[in-house]
Amino acid sequence: MNEKLLHTPEGVRDIYNSECKKKSAVEKRMHHVLELYGYQDIETPTFEFFDIFNSDTGTVSSLEMFKFFDRNNNTLVLRPDMTPSIARSVAKYYSNCDFPLRLSYQGNTFLNNRSYQGKLAEKTELGAELVNDDSPEADAEVIIMMIDCFLAAGIREFRIDIGQVEFYKGIMDALEVSEDVKKQIHEYIENKNSLGMEILLSNLEIKPCYRNILSEYNELYGDVSMLEKAKRLTMNPRCRKAIERLEEVYEVLKLYGYEKYVSFDLGMVNHYDYYTGIIFRGYTYGTGDAIGKGGRYDNLLSQFGKDATACGFTILVDDVLSALSRQNIPISLREYEYSLFLYEKEERAEAISLAVGLRNGGVKTETICRVKDKTLEEYMKFGKNQGAQGMIYLNGGMVTVYDFTEGLKKTKTLQEFREEY
Amino acid sequence: MNEKLLHTPEGVRDIYNSECKKKSAVEKRMHHVLELYGYQDIETPTFEFFDIFNSDTGTVSSLEMFKFFDRNNNTLVLRPDMTPSIARSVAKYYSNCDFPLRLSYQGNTFLNNRSYQGKLAEKTELGAELVNDDSPEADAEVIIMMIDCFLAAGIREFRIDIGQVEFYKGIMDALEVSEDVKKQIHEYIENKNSLGMEILLSNLEIKPCYRNILSEYNELYGDVSMLEKAKRLTMNPRCRKAIERLEEVYEVLKLYGYEKYVSFDLGMVNHYDYYTGIIFRGYTYGTGDAIGKGGRYDNLLSQFGKDATACGFTILVDDVLSALSRQNIPISLREYEYSLFLYEKEERAEAISLAVGLRNGGVKTETICRVKDKTLEEYMKFGKNQGAQGMIYLNGGMVTVYDFTEGLKKTKTLQEFREEY
Repeated sequence: MNEKLLHTPEGVRDIYNSECKKKSAVEKRMHHVLELYGYQDIETPTFEFFDIFNSDTGTVSSLEMFKFFDRNNNTLVLRPDMTPSIARSVAKYYSNCDFPLRLSYQGNTFLNNRSYQGKLAEKTELGAELVNDDSPEADAEVIIMMIDCFLAAGIREFRIDIGQVEFYKGIMDALEVSEDVKKQIHEYIENKNSLGMEILLSNLEIKPCYRNILSEYNELYGDVSMLEKAKRLTMNPRCRKAIERLEEVYEVLKLYGYEKYVSFDLGMVNHYDYYTGIIFRGYTYGTGDAIGKGGRYDNLLSQFGKDATACGFTILVDDVLSALSRQNIPISLREYEYSLFLYEKEERAEAISLAVGLRNGGVKTETICRVKDKTLEEYMKFGKNQGAQGMIYLNGGMVTVYDFTEGLKKTKTLQEFREEY
Repeated sequence: MNEKLLHTPEGVRDIYNSECKKKSAVEKRMHHVLELYGYQDIETPTFEFFDIFNSDTGTVSSLEMFKFFDRNNNTLVLRPDMTPSIARSVAKYYSNCDFPLRLSYQGNTFLNNRSYQGKLAEKTELGAELVNDDSPEADAEVIIMMIDCFLAAGIREFRIDIGQVEFYKGIMDALEVSEDVKKQIHEYIENKNSLGMEILLSNLEIKPCYRNILSEYNELYGDVSMLEKAKRLTMNPRCRKAIERLEEVYEVLKLYGYEKYVSFDLGMVNHYDYYTGIIFRGYTYGTGDAIGKGGRYDNLLSQFGKDATACGFTILVDDVLSALSRQNIPISLREYEYSLFLYEKEERAEAISLAVGLRNGGVKTETICRVKDKTLEEYMKFGKNQGAQGMIYLNGGMVTVYDFTEGLKKTKTLQEFREEY
């Protein structure tokens, strides 16, 4: 046998036993949040034409996509991101609709990482898109849902960092400097490199107000009071409007009592071509990167021929599970509880009749005809390893019920067992 | 805008709105059946090394797989089938376990069809594998679960055709003819070509008993009484044992009252290299091909280095949905019921407080701040199109509840509304 046959490609893996149940439980609980807000599921294909995810419509570089060809030699890619697919669908199926559309999804995305170093090439994402609503309430709703998802997953300590690329764009558009200098400024903001910025500014001829903002830019993060400070720094109407928008979103968050979960960071300017307003990231302990992210991308749908606003978020389910595990947060698996039902071959008919009854009553029951060379203890050990809560053993017309959780054992007659279950 | 940007590749598609809910509902109900039998979910990667699905371990030809390369130039394929992946996982994670392992899965598989003609390139499959159990009860259990899945999906008229490749192999191994002739015989059996078989047999020197069987082979289908007839036709011990196995499985099916759903067909000999015993297909009206299929493949796991028996089945979820739709069987979507909650901007705080209360009570509620240029009627029409069951309208401290299903409208004070919900 070729040992290689047991391996999975780099960056992908199997999920089984209790880990699989935990993932499913956490996904279900987070998905229920999206349902409660009236979001409707959509499923898009696992692979699409390359153009759907090009640089205007996505945030993933072409180099990091898994590509292949169809029979007509079109380039196909495993979706690196769900949002462009949802945008395409909305443009296609809701082309004339201008009512708010709430769409949710659960699915896997694929990244052909240049260096894996433990990074997953296949990730499960769960998220939502709110189309045709450019209000601050819409921005707030997607943030609130992300918070509710984290809470539903069981995470208690997390923070949502909120940025606003419009503020950044307001400054950059007003600056009369070369594109190269703008790139440099962008880099210093993104990396919070204050020293680099100071040196750059000392050699730059720009209006004092922009000089002020840029030299203070790396301090523009913190709680809501920072927004006041940022407003005082500029009279640029676009920048001020951008800040006021954040203040409005904050007002809505307060109505939900969720202001305690958020902080602001105007230096969050990654993918500023893609985002058109608010941008946010959710962080918790035990994972380095954000476990959820989102924002507003009002230019995305027009790439697919529909002039509509949109905002949304996505949660990286695998990272949420890692965080829960590292934070030692237990995940209740009550809904997955099941029992072994062991019987002797001669009593097969009786065993099946009992098992059918248990299943009809909703009890998850795995029937096993006892093999002579295995002991009861071995079956119990196997059941415990598999995550079973107990074992029922039918033998000679008597039923013994073993409760693994409480370590109890009770023997009943068939009649008594039937009456009880 | 490039029109092509709205298209999905051939053979894949978007699933949205009520179709998506129906799919999700049917999947959940069928998956619950697997849970009730104590099956544990496993998730394997969407793509794997090509070797996992080669001709010894799978039933899909290499030409029909979507292939691409990883950064080390290994050939990867989008999984065309789930069973080989599960077999690999079992060999890897349960290498020393000889207790019955019950594994279930839900996921998409991919076929690069040579001619699409409406065939799906991406299909959702749901299925189960039972490893380390070579009993007739195991064969019966996978058939029974497939029946329970069809019933849970709402299909009432269906038939499970059961074959037995061991019967076929018993004859073929005993026949003293060339490989070419065996191929010819196989083809005539698979296509139920009795005339071709007669002509071939008339030129063949074989023992009379095999001549008898082969000339009657295309009649070896029907209800359980056919098994008696098949047994009478041969004294070959392997063939007789194969038939007796089917009789034992039938006895178990009777214990569940499920014998009415099955019929037998010894001419079901496709992929006879892969299967080692029972083989079955589920058919219903409204789809040409089988909507579910399975069997026993005791040689599969040894390909991955574990000497273990295995049987299982898979259900083609998309085909089940097509069948339900063509048979006009309604799918209850009660669990997806939700309402619009329309409010005027001035009453935002009140609206959010009510919506939070509704959601905490489990009511799926989509909040919409009314836009002045849209009428109530327009919102209601939109809601109905989206599948909402009703609309709640908060205006001037009064709440009007519209029930779309019953066409009713009731106005309440805030106080009354709070008390009721």
